Amino acid sequence: MAQGKQTTKVTIFGVEYSITSDRNPDEVRRIAKFVDDKMWEISENNNLISTEKVAILTALNIAEDYFRNLEQRKREQERVERKTSSIIKLIDESRF
Amino acid sequence: MAQGKQTTKVTIFGVEYSITSDRNPDEVRRIAKFVDDKMWEISENNNLISTEKVAILTALNIAEDYFRNLEQRKREQERVERKTSSIIKLIDESRF
Repeated sequence: MAQGKQTTKVTIFGVEYSITSDRNPDEVRRIAKFVDDKMWEISENNNLISTEKVAILTALNIAEDYFRNLEQRKREQERVERKTSSIIKLIDESRF
Repeated sequence: MAQGKQTTKVTIFGVEYSITSDRNPDEVRRIAKFVDDKMWEISENNNLISTEKVAILTALNIAEDYFRNLEQRKREQERVERKTSSIIKLIDESRF
């Protein structure tokens, strides 16, 4: 179902934001909760740092998760390609 | 090669940070540049917002990239499983 953009209210690190997105409100809330949880976690592990620095460290932390996941995905794709090639080779050889 | 934690200096949104990480300095710089680029992009698209808000919007934006990639990876894995099952079924059937 085409929905267009919707606005969802979320609370991140104690402040309410209105997020306008193509994603449905449940997804927006899930993403906001992920950011909120990381911010509180980073804030607890780094005493007395500003919200600005907490948010930047959170962005870096999530970017690292994102890059790690991209790398894992690439390795999986390469593994599937290798396996597929070897299965095709086996099937081809079995014909003779 | 086991390296342990290294400290790398990076500049994000005009401020220098020392990042201590297991990742090598080139990777840390790549991740920091990704965050820095997004922050400038978001700042240009949202006039007069605070660095704190730019950083929070950046974290949300990267979290969305991360979730999208996780979903794509899950769909790929399911597709590979389905294809693998159907290939195994075909091979099994060809034996009789």
